[in-house]
Amino acid sequence: MEFYDEKIKALAIEIYELDAEVYKKLGSSLGRVFGGEKDICIRNIMEDLHSRQNSSRIRSELALISNMARTIPDHDTRHDIMVRYNNIVEEIAELPTGFADGDILDPKIADLNTVNLKDRFKTGDHLIICIGRSCGCGGNEIGFALADKLRMNFYDVSVMNEVFRQKDGEEAAQATATFQKKERMGIKKRIKAFKKYHGLSSEDVLFFDTSKFLVEKAKQEDFIVMGRFADAILTNNHIPHISIFITAPEKRRIQRFLEINKNVTPNQAKKWIESEDKRHLKTYKFYTGRKWSKASNYDICINSASYGIKGSIELIIRMLQLDDRVKQLIE
Amino acid sequence: MEFYDEKIKALAIEIYELDAEVYKKLGSSLGRVFGGEKDICIRNIMEDLHSRQNSSRIRSELALISNMARTIPDHDTRHDIMVRYNNIVEEIAELPTGFADGDILDPKIADLNTVNLKDRFKTGDHLIICIGRSCGCGGNEIGFALADKLRMNFYDVSVMNEVFRQKDGEEAAQATATFQKKERMGIKKRIKAFKKYHGLSSEDVLFFDTSKFLVEKAKQEDFIVMGRFADAILTNNHIPHISIFITAPEKRRIQRFLEINKNVTPNQAKKWIESEDKRHLKTYKFYTGRKWSKASNYDICINSASYGIKGSIELIIRMLQLDDRVKQLIE
Repeated sequence: MEFYDEKIKALAIEIYELDAEVYKKLGSSLGRVFGGEKDICIRNIMEDLHSRQNSSRIRSELALISNMARTIPDHDTRHDIMVRYNNIVEEIAELPTGFADGDILDPKIADLNTVNLKDRFKTGDHLIICIGRSCGCGGNEIGFALADKLRMNFYDVSVMNEVFRQKDGEEAAQATATFQKKERMGIKKRIKAFKKYHGLSSEDVLFFDTSKFLVEKAKQEDFIVMGRFADAILTNNHIPHISIFITAPEKRRIQRFLEINKNVTPNQAKKWIESEDKRHLKTYKFYTGRKWSKASNYDICINSASYGIKGSIELIIRMLQLDDRVKQLIE
Repeated sequence: MEFYDEKIKALAIEIYELDAEVYKKLGSSLGRVFGGEKDICIRNIMEDLHSRQNSSRIRSELALISNMARTIPDHDTRHDIMVRYNNIVEEIAELPTGFADGDILDPKIADLNTVNLKDRFKTGDHLIICIGRSCGCGGNEIGFALADKLRMNFYDVSVMNEVFRQKDGEEAAQATATFQKKERMGIKKRIKAFKKYHGLSSEDVLFFDTSKFLVEKAKQEDFIVMGRFADAILTNNHIPHISIFITAPEKRRIQRFLEINKNVTPNQAKKWIESEDKRHLKTYKFYTGRKWSKASNYDICINSASYGIKGSIELIIRMLQLDDRVKQLIE
């Protein structure tokens, strides 16, 4: 403990002196960060270093000093001071009370979403990318082109529907259709659909089929899956995956919808986009208990209006360190 | 036009034959994607190729074929078929009606948020990264450490407050304090504060000061700025920047808040985090007219619970292709 106190005191003095030094070199009109009486300043710094709650204060003070230090014109002086500054930051980071860096990493989430895919591949898991997207943002195009670029299988509702149809006959496919048309069904039809699937609603049948399908595929291959609550299904089944949400400002999505669908009025486009967003919100909530489109429910969200379709694909490849994979595939 | 029709027909035949070929090689129990009468199938494909609205159908059909093709055991056969498949995809992409890839890129947003920083630097603009974050997600730690790693200046509310205080005396600094304490102020005090700043509310004074400060800094240097509606301020002033929002699930943020603040009860932590989120939502809306924390208002959002503090820093560096910059700085 005594050693620790000594260390804190030594650090506080170093910080005080660094500030004084920077001020001396610059003669800055901004004055010094620690302009008061030396002993009082050092005592204040020590107090801040002693408590994690105050770490943001220390951080801001250091930022002020280093922001100024970077403006020192003479290269050698600047370099010496920045070396001292870096040492101080490193030493603070090593203090048990230093900076509030109690990590935010959630091991439960992180295990499923490792940023470093090289580590993940070691374990023999497949690379699975779940892409959620809002209507009209180009998310489907991004997912499809990404799958092609990475030579991974691609599953969206139509592909899965087709697989179900070919595997199990018409039943599951009808469930998908029913699922998509639920809003337009009368109560009688809904009861009929409900009875048809052994007491399970047709939506539930589809949900279970999708779960079974994805869990099975995850054992066999790398793939990209669009929507279908895949992120929630895989999380529930403890299957590692990366979840990405792609969206764009509503105004831009409406504009693009109009560019693609020439026979639609702006009002119709707006209504369609908004009703699709609502539908997604509702069904995602129902099956996952989570809020669709909320950033903290995904690993990353991308604004496709900022990057475009090609740019978003590049961004994902770069982010997931899949550059090497692409290179290998092209060679 | 005639040439175009010919091309569509040739493509439709190619797709039909590719499907047949894959089926032949695999003898798949899933059957063929186009299992009906040849002429009808080709006519259907042609119709889909003729219309952009139906591009998602073609895309799903192609995904089905290629998903199957990738399972062909013999390497050479698989390779030949995938080459044919890739050619088809490329040719479709070149059709004016091919795939719904009316790009989602919004030039107005994209100009301000270029993904390729190398291009941006050419124009002489500075690299400005705006980081918004929800309370307790480690966003401050990420921003601070990122600034240090990239040797960029770092501005958060405390740093700016200090700069204002040292520059313009106490007035602006008080505005910040007032701004942060608004909720706790009585009506009398608020009127007093309002009068003090020449008819502008103290919040408005701070907003204008911050605007002025950021616009000025943007001409001089690269920097990272935390919160302060910086993204909206820079957008309004047509200053290129990258906007990142960092968040994590509320549950994890509360947990971390408790780890850092030992003398707080779980209930207090929850209340604090939720009231901070609400405060951010309200003031951001007031000054920008936009919804705080909504993914489409940022270039990218990162879930820090998935990547942790270090991982999030790495992710941002990788994403913005700043790896080289880091390498240069370390050398």
